[in-house]
Order: sequence, then C-alpha cells, then structure tokens
Amino acid sequence: MPHEISPSPRIRRSPYYAATLEEGVTAFSTYNHMLMPTSYGDPEAEYRRLVEGVAMWDVAVERQVELTGPDAGRLAQILTPRRLDRLAVGTGWYVPVCDHRGVLINDPVLLKHAEDRYWFSIADGDLLLWARAIAAERGLDVTVVEPEVAPLAVQGPRAEDVIAALFGEEIRAIRHFRFREVELDGIPLVLARSGWSRQGGFELYLLEPSRGVDLWHRVRAAGRPFDIGPGAPNPAERIESGLLSWGGDTDDATTPFEVRMSRYVHLDAPAEVVGIDALRRIARAGPARHQLGAVFDAGGPLAAPDLWCQVTLEGTLLGHVTARAFSPRLGTIVGMCLVDRRLRPGDRVGVSLPDGAAAAATLAGFPLV
Amino acid sequence: MPHEISPSPRIRRSPYYAATLEEGVTAFSTYNHMLMPTSYGDPEAEYRRLVEGVAMWDVAVERQVELTGPDAGRLAQILTPRRLDRLAVGTGWYVPVCDHRGVLINDPVLLKHAEDRYWFSIADGDLLLWARAIAAERGLDVTVVEPEVAPLAVQGPRAEDVIAALFGEEIRAIRHFRFREVELDGIPLVLARSGWSRQGGFELYLLEPSRGVDLWHRVRAAGRPFDIGPGAPNPAERIESGLLSWGGDTDDATTPFEVRMSRYVHLDAPAEVVGIDALRRIARAGPARHQLGAVFDAGGPLAAPDLWCQVTLEGTLLGHVTARAFSPRLGTIVGMCLVDRRLRPGDRVGVSLPDGAAAAATLAGFPLV
Repeated sequence: MPHEISPSPRIRRSPYYAATLEEGVTAFSTYNHMLMPTSYGDPEAEYRRLVEGVAMWDVAVERQVELTGPDAGRLAQILTPRRLDRLAVGTGWYVPVCDHRGVLINDPVLLKHAEDRYWFSIADGDLLLWARAIAAERGLDVTVVEPEVAPLAVQGPRAEDVIAALFGEEIRAIRHFRFREVELDGIPLVLARSGWSRQGGFELYLLEPSRGVDLWHRVRAAGRPFDIGPGAPNPAERIESGLLSWGGDTDDATTPFEVRMSRYVHLDAPAEVVGIDALRRIARAGPARHQLGAVFDAGGPLAAPDLWCQVTLEGTLLGHVTARAFSPRLGTIVGMCLVDRRLRPGDRVGVSLPDGAAAAATLAGFPLV
Repeated sequence: MPHEISPSPRIRRSPYYAATLEEGVTAFSTYNHMLMPTSYGDPEAEYRRLVEGVAMWDVAVERQVELTGPDAGRLAQILTPRRLDRLAVGTGWYVPVCDHRGVLINDPVLLKHAEDRYWFSIADGDLLLWARAIAAERGLDVTVVEPEVAPLAVQGPRAEDVIAALFGEEIRAIRHFRFREVELDGIPLVLARSGWSRQGGFELYLLEPSRGVDLWHRVRAAGRPFDIGPGAPNPAERIESGLLSWGGDTDDATTPFEVRMSRYVHLDAPAEVVGIDALRRIARAGPARHQLGAVFDAGGPLAAPDLWCQVTLEGTLLGHVTARAFSPRLGTIVGMCLVDRRLRPGDRVGVSLPDGAAAAATLAGFPLV
C-alpha cells in the first residue's frame, strides 16, 4: 500500500526537482539526505526505455566527496585498497572504501580531476564524515567538502546518440569511465561515460545547480528524436546486470570479497591504507559469502520488496535474497543474493517470502539476461 | 502535492511497522536509513494529543551508537566537548558532537549504562562511521556498533500516567534524562524520562525487536483511559519549544554556539577532545549566527515547508528560516531561524517564501508558546 513521503528540511531537493514534477514523477526514495525520483507511474515503460532506447535520470543524490589540496591524492589512496598509481587525470574508477575491519562502507566511483583534486561519487552513506575524520586524525593537508554538484544520467543503447546530438560527434570517442569538462550553452558540466546500469550511457555532473531545469529541458529536447523519457535507477535492470546497491545488498559485516569487488582490492596497497591488514587476513581465510543472482520460479507476487528473504537448501539457512524485482525480459522475479559460498550457479534453493509464502528459485551468475 | 515513498532494502522498517500500519499511518519520512512514521492523517488531532493528552511515537529511527570496552568512556569524551566527569551511570545527557573544525555533526543524547558502556542516541547522520574512524585511528580498545534497539516515545502531559499504569507508581520518581532497565511481561526495555518534545514524557528503548508490535499494543492498551493515540515528532510543537532538528536547521558551518548549545561546550575539556581547539577559537571570536523563533503575520499558506527561506531586514539578507509549521495554539505559522546575531527577539523581518511571496514575521525567543 502506497504511503506519502513527508517534506522535511532534512531531505533536500535536487536541482532537477521542478523538471521531474513537470514529467509527472509519482514516487521518491531518499538517498544521501536528498529526494531521489524512483518512478513516473509506468514502470514497464521506464524499464523498456532503459534497455531498448534511452532514459534520463535525476541522480543528484549521487553526492561528491571532494578532496583538494597537497595531500588529496594521499588521502584518496588511504581511503581505498585499490591501488591508485595508474589512475590518470580524467578517469573514474570504481573503488571499495573499507573500514579498519575490512568491511565495505561505500562503493564510490573515484574521479581524478587533477593531482590535487578528486571526487568520490558516493553510494548512500555519509562518507564525508569518514573522509574528514581520517584526514584530520592523520594531520593531512587536504580540504574535504561536498560540492554542489548534481549528476543527471542518460542511460540506454541510444544514450550516446543523445549526448552526440548535444555535444558533437567527437564525444563518441570517450571511453568507459573517462570524463571531461564541457559546457552546454553556458552550463558548466563534467561529462563522463558512466552510470548505474549496464545499458551504456553518460552522466552529466552539473556544476551550477541553478541551471538544473534548464539542463533537463535541453537533454529532453535533444533526446526527442530518440524517444527519450524520464526514468530512475532501475531495480530490475540492476539485478539482471549484477550491480551492487550498497546499504541494500550489504550488512555491517560485508567485505568487498563477498560482493564481487576482489579485483579492486590490492593486497599490496600501501600500509597506510585503512583496513589493508584486515583485508589481507580476510583474503587468506577466504570470504564466507558471495553474491549470486536468483531467478524465481514463475508465479507469485512481489510482496514487500524492501525486505531481505531467507535462502534455504534442504531446510538449512544459507543466506539471503537482498533485493527482488520483476524482470520483464525474463518474465519472472529476479533477486540479488548474498549467500554461503558453497552455493553455486544452478543450485535450486528455497526462499521464504515476507508474506510467509515459500518460493523456489534457481541461482545464477551475472548478468542474468 | 503528495508523492509515494518507494520501498527499498536501503531503508529499513521499524519493529513497530506493522502496528503503525494498523493505526493507519499515512506518511513517512526517512531518518538514519529507516522509515519514520510522520502522520496518521489528522495533524490537528496528533498535535492536540501531544500538547493536551498523550501520544505514542515510533521513533525506532533514533539509532544507538554503542561504545563498549575499556576505552568506551575515553572515546565518549573524545567525541564531545561536554565534560563527562559528572555523567553518572543511569543518566543521559544532551551533548554536541563536533568535527575538527568545531562544526556540529550530531546532537545526540549520551546514555551512560556503565563505566564501559555508552549509547549515543543519534540525530539523522552516520555517527557510527565517525565514531569508528576516531576510535580506530587513535588505537582505542573499544567496540562501536549499532545495536538492534528501537525507541518508542510516549509524550504529553498524561504520559507519566500511562507509564505508571504500565510499570507502577514508583516510576514517577524518575527524573528528567534518568533511565533504568525494566521488563514488561518479559519484554526487555530501557525506560528513560526523555523525548523530542517539551510536553514531558518517556522513551522506551526496546531491546528485543521481535517484540515491537507486542510492546505497541501494551502501551496502547494502558493508554486507553488517557485517550492515547499515535503520533510522531511534531514539526509545530518542536519549533514552539525550540528543539533543534540537526541536519534540517543546520548546515556544514553550524557550530554548537549558534544553536543554543553553548552551555554544553566546555572549553576546559581535555585536549584530546575532537574540535576543542577550534571551539576555543570560535568562542573567542563569537558566533556569527544564532537561533531565534519567528511568528509569521497571519494569513498565507505553508508553501514547501522543506525549503529554507531568506530572512531580510530592510532588504539585507541576514539569515534563513530553516523550518516552518502551522501552530494551532498561536493560530499562525511559526518558524525556526538561523540568523545574524545582530537580529534580536522583537525584530520585524521580511521572509521570502518559496512560492515567491513575501511574508513578514516577528522574531522571538524560545519557547514561542
């Protein structure tokens, strides 16, 4: 049953807010203390647009934690066990951020703007507090702030056409996770080939929040020939594609090894990296759990998709389904699982649904589609 | 215009969730990555209940950051500039938590359970990350976790009667901010005289989340003779009473001196307290802003109560109204202001409303009623 979201000064609006109202936004979530549009009333159309055409998303909630100053690079490296030696200016890398126990506390994209300027483009947690604490406790010469930057994502197989229509054909040469500063009729932006889907696309990091609605309208107009429409990070597509939702798929014990980030944990990272000792120990012991997809047997409604569900094999509890959504392409419910590593793709498992019903699912590797 | 809140595994349910559905909850906010009921469809009745009778609130979102171990007391002191020498076991104190710049990053109640066990009962920010960072960077022997504790607030002039009906007449002797461990038919609780209103009342910190609905029903039944009903932290009452909403009334520069917490900043606190040097400097210079109430001239709707409004005096911008609500007792809109310290109670100011309209208000000290 739907419930209202109450307005609160604790929960900020996006610079695109008025534009999303014009588009008929019907539902929001909150993320990093901001409102995030989650639906425009037609989930099927929003999904089709993303996987077959092009969608535009207000993801201003994807906040930046900016490091500037002489020790910016050193702090960036201290905060992640991924070695940054080869991170070039103009490149973004997906990086784990761990606490001293080796537990994953965020999974940002780290954008290197200059040797002395970085952005962590963060998941839903106050990484700003963490970064400031570490910087100050270690006496580093660095400033850590959350700048007024608001990403707008353009995602889907036709996204590149829309971006080329706006910025010229040469942008087609931008490689995955590369970015550059651009202007659109005086609107300052960082343009990156990135985004929280596996359908391809770009993110426009708006640097001047007062131009949000203006930017939205320009992208909308350029996308009209490609049938662009509004959308949001898509629960079904991201499960099909195996994208992690930190805070939703993780708990207070989840390590990067458990959520398919092992290749971003470099055990030879510098000794001053937070959590590196713990990560070495955990790597030796091997992770207890891992992430797999689940394809549910057809039938049965999607009760309470906000709740984790128990996964059982022959009556033994072996983990959880951490997220579920209806996959239009598979015609059934799909799930993201965090389960005992003894479970493998192809295994048939039982799932206890929140309404008390029992379901059956087949485990699978990603992508599911 | 009301919008739906989308279900998400990132945003947890309270142990009282099913009970609040039974009560007809109509709206939620989010707070500390959880759903917080904000209305049951009759704001006027919810307000009256709180100021004239008794209301029960699901405030499970008020999370605990628990410190345990030999260095728990030392870490608690490091995290706040309020001197804790005289904090006795069984007492909770309202404490500022500041970063190294002296900026307020949370305003919890600190409950001392034992010499080696403390809870920070927190506002809407990931203090868990902050506390863990400081503890680990300083090499302290302390464990920092968020336990599964879910407060239920019973607030209003008849709250004590309800609590006495449940726990016996002797609880009337519990003084403000004192707490004790109790049981209610096997439900383990911490019972504290506290709560985010100035109408008096208690908070029941549920220690066994599976008993949430059970506890709700028992409080409901005991409150029936006193006409108890559901409610939520009340935007109007808290402004009338001058209670701070951290994250709503504050920005990334707000110091405790600006938000009426000066008496909880002890400049002779130990040198290892985070931010103490900065606080001494700020105290010498004097804060730039302070908090006052605003009573709006009658008339005019409450447009977009989530937005800050500019406060002007003869055309000069002198601060913001950080929150607004309709006060049934004053019959007009009231506001919480963070303004230049040259502004004083009694001053007449202009306010730019979000819909573009101009309003006039009179500044006032707290409480407003």
